[in-house]
Amino acid sequence: MSLPFHLSQRARQTAEPPISYFMEQAVGNPGLISLAAGLVDGASLPADDVRGAVEQILRDPARAREALQYGTTQGYAPLREKILANLLALDHVSRRDLDATPDDVVVTTGSQQLLYLLGELLFDPGDIVITEAPSYFVYHGILASLGVRTLAVPMDQDGMSTDALDELLQQLERAGELGRVRLVYTVDYFQNPSGLSLSRERRRQLLDIVQRFSKQQRIFILEDAAYRELRYEGDDAPSIKSLDAGNQHVILTMTFSKPLSPGLKTGYGLLPRDLVGPLLRFKGNHDFGSSNFNQHVLDQLLANGVYDRHVEELRGAYRRKRDIFVAALREEFPASTGMRFANPEGGMYVWLTCPEGLDTGLKSPFMKACIKEGVLYVPGECCYVGNGATPCMEARLCFGVATPEELREAARRLGRAARAVGLPRRSLPRAAGCRA
Amino acid sequence: MSLPFHLSQRARQTAEPPISYFMEQAVGNPGLISLAAGLVDGASLPADDVRGAVEQILRDPARAREALQYGTTQGYAPLREKILANLLALDHVSRRDLDATPDDVVVTTGSQQLLYLLGELLFDPGDIVITEAPSYFVYHGILASLGVRTLAVPMDQDGMSTDALDELLQQLERAGELGRVRLVYTVDYFQNPSGLSLSRERRRQLLDIVQRFSKQQRIFILEDAAYRELRYEGDDAPSIKSLDAGNQHVILTMTFSKPLSPGLKTGYGLLPRDLVGPLLRFKGNHDFGSSNFNQHVLDQLLANGVYDRHVEELRGAYRRKRDIFVAALREEFPASTGMRFANPEGGMYVWLTCPEGLDTGLKSPFMKACIKEGVLYVPGECCYVGNGATPCMEARLCFGVATPEELREAARRLGRAARAVGLPRRSLPRAAGCRA
Repeated sequence: MSLPFHLSQRARQTAEPPISYFMEQAVGNPGLISLAAGLVDGASLPADDVRGAVEQILRDPARAREALQYGTTQGYAPLREKILANLLALDHVSRRDLDATPDDVVVTTGSQQLLYLLGELLFDPGDIVITEAPSYFVYHGILASLGVRTLAVPMDQDGMSTDALDELLQQLERAGELGRVRLVYTVDYFQNPSGLSLSRERRRQLLDIVQRFSKQQRIFILEDAAYRELRYEGDDAPSIKSLDAGNQHVILTMTFSKPLSPGLKTGYGLLPRDLVGPLLRFKGNHDFGSSNFNQHVLDQLLANGVYDRHVEELRGAYRRKRDIFVAALREEFPASTGMRFANPEGGMYVWLTCPEGLDTGLKSPFMKACIKEGVLYVPGECCYVGNGATPCMEARLCFGVATPEELREAARRLGRAARAVGLPRRSLPRAAGCRA
Repeated sequence: MSLPFHLSQRARQTAEPPISYFMEQAVGNPGLISLAAGLVDGASLPADDVRGAVEQILRDPARAREALQYGTTQGYAPLREKILANLLALDHVSRRDLDATPDDVVVTTGSQQLLYLLGELLFDPGDIVITEAPSYFVYHGILASLGVRTLAVPMDQDGMSTDALDELLQQLERAGELGRVRLVYTVDYFQNPSGLSLSRERRRQLLDIVQRFSKQQRIFILEDAAYRELRYEGDDAPSIKSLDAGNQHVILTMTFSKPLSPGLKTGYGLLPRDLVGPLLRFKGNHDFGSSNFNQHVLDQLLANGVYDRHVEELRGAYRRKRDIFVAALREEFPASTGMRFANPEGGMYVWLTCPEGLDTGLKSPFMKACIKEGVLYVPGECCYVGNGATPCMEARLCFGVATPEELREAARRLGRAARAVGLPRRSLPRAAGCRA
C-alpha cells in the first residue's frame, strides 16, 4: 500500500510543461514530422568542431585537469570574457558604454536555468510579471510555479506594444499595484512563438517606460535574446541592454543552444551588477556551477573563431530552410485560403494564423487531423497566459529541426489536414471564410 | 544612483554557501594547499578516457547528432539503464528485489541539483528535516534557503545514532509536530565531513524507524551515497535503498563527480516511483534536462568498462593518499598531543578533533595561523546546524585534491600552525591538555 506524502505549495502549482510532451513526441516518434519541438537543425550540429575542441583541451594535461575538475559557480572566467566580447561586438559598443565587465556575466545550464534562478530571486507569490501576448510558453510555466501573477501586453508587427504597456502600468499604478511589478519579459528578436521582433524605436520606448515607472523600486526588463544571432535578412537592432547606460534595468539572456549545440546546455546572462551576488547564492544551492567541461569546450570554440564561422554557416542553412518552408506553405495555403503567416527575418518559427472557424487547439479536429497525417505543431493557445483573450486559431511551426524535404512534406501534411477539416483548396474571400 | 529592488522571501533567507569561499580560495590561490575544497584528485582525472569516448560518439554521425541535440528532462535512457545496473550490482540485488526500473532514475546536474529539486518538491517553510551532526554543510544551505527547520541527530562510530533519531521522532510526535517531518538526510558512506559510515545494523534500524513513524504520511530517507564507490578497505554495506522493498521511502542519490569527473557535472537519483513525475516538473522548469552531451560521454564510459576500471584505479590512488596523509598527521600529532583523527575506510575526508582550548573556527587563531602557513581546512563548526551544541574544535581535512607531497607538507603546516597557537610538540596527557 502506498502512503501519501506531502508536496510543497510550489509543487502543487507546478504543472507539466507542454514542451516536455512535444519534445518527447519528437524524440520518440520518428515517423512524425515535428514542427512543435524547438530542437535545432541536426545536420548543422558541429560534431567535428566539438571533437577538435575536446582534442585540444584534453591533449594538454594542464587544461584537461582544469576542464574535468570543478569550476566556479559563476562560470569559467575566460569564457565569460569572450561572452562579453561577443555581446559588445554585436552591439558595437565598448565595456565602458555598458558599464559591464565579465563579472557581470553568469553562465547557466541553458538560458532556461537563468530564467528560473531570476524568478526565485525576484518574485514572491502574487508579484506581477508582464509578458508579451503571445509569449514563450515555457517561461509561463516557471511563473505559474512561482505563484506569479502574469499580465500580457499585445504585440503587433513592431513587437510588444509599448503604448499598451504604458497603459497597463498606469492602470496598475492607479490600482496601487505598481509596487508588485517586478519585470517585463520580452523575447525581442524573432520571438518564440510569433517570429516578430521589437523595433528600434520600441526598444528605447520600452526602457524609458520601465525607468519612468520604477518609482519606489526598480522594474527590470528581462531581455531574452536567444535567437538574436540567427538573423537571415534585414539589419540587426541594438539590444535593449545596450541602451541601459546605467546597467540597472536590463537582464540580458542568451544561449549557445540555438546558435551552436543544445547538447552542451550552456546559456548565459549579462546582469545589473547588484543582481549577480544574490543570483549566485541561488546557483550555489542549485549546482555550484554548470558543467565546467562544456564551458571549456565553448571557450575553445570561441577562441579559435569556430563559433563565428559556425553561426555564419548556420544562418545560411536556416535561411534556406525558412525559404523552402515558407514557399511550401504558400503553395499549400495561398492568400485566398485565409491562412496567414509572415516570412520571419530570423529565428526558427513561422506563426500561422488560420481563418476563423479553423481551431488549432490541443483537442481540435485540426490537431487530430495533423497527427493522423503525421505532423505536429504547438497550438497558439499554449502561448497565451493571464489577462486578455486567448486566440484559438494560431499555430507555432518550427522549421529548425526538420530537413528541407521534411519541411516540404510537413507543409503538404498541414495542407491535407486543413482541407480534411474544411479549409477549401482555394477558399472564398476572407469575409466569407469568417462566416463559415 | 542605484534604485532599490525587491528580493524574494527565499532570496532573503539564502546565504552565501561557505563552499563557494573555499572553492574560490582553492581555485584562485595556487600557493595555498587547500584541504578545504572537496575537489578531486587532479592526476586521476580521466582525460584520455573522456577523449576516447568523445571520439567514439562524435565520429559516428548519428550518435553525434543525438549527443549534441537536446535530450530529455529525465536523462538519456541508455545511461539510466546503466546507472540502475551499476546500483543493482553494488547491492547484489535484482530489479525485482528493488521494484526499480530505469524510469525511476533521474539524471541531474550533479547530485547537488537533485538535493535542491527534492527540497523544492517536498518542503514548505517550517517543515522539518532531520540530518546528522555533523553533516554536509552545503545541504544545510539549501534547507535554510527553503525555510526548513533542521534538526540534527548525533553520530558515533556506527554513524547516525538511531536511538537518538527514535527519541527525537517520539518527542516530535508528542509535540504534535510529526506531520511536519519530511525526511531524514544521511550521508551514509564515509560521511562528508566525519568520514564515518552507517553500520549494517543501523541501516535496517533507520528504515524501520522511518516506516514506523510514517503514520499520517510518508517520511523519506534521503540517502546521499556520493562516496560509496570510494572504499579503500573493509566490506561494503548494502544501501538503505536496497532494504526498501516497497520502493517507498528511500531516495538514493549518487554522482559521477567524485568517482570520475566533476567537470562533467552529472549526478543521479533512484527514487520512489511516485516522486519521479512531480520532480521532473520542477526539472522541466529549471533546465528541461542536464547536459545531454555529457550524458552520452558517461554512457560510453560505462558501456565499455572504462568507468569500472577508472574507479578501481582511483581507489588505489586515494588509498595511497589517505595512507600518506594519515601517516603524516600521526607524525605531526602523536596521540599525546590530544589531537584525534580516525583512518577513514573510504571517501576523501579526515575529521580532526583538537584538544579543548584549540578552536578551529573561521576567526580562530588556529585558522589564521593555518592561512599564514599556507593550508586551508573547513572548520567543523560549519558542519553543524539546528538544535544541539556546535563543537568548535573540529576540522574537515580533504585529502582528495592535494598531491602526496602536498599532503605531507600540509600536515607539517598544520603542525606548525597548531604549535604556533599553543599545542605542545608532545602535549601533556589529555586531562591536562583540557585544562590548558
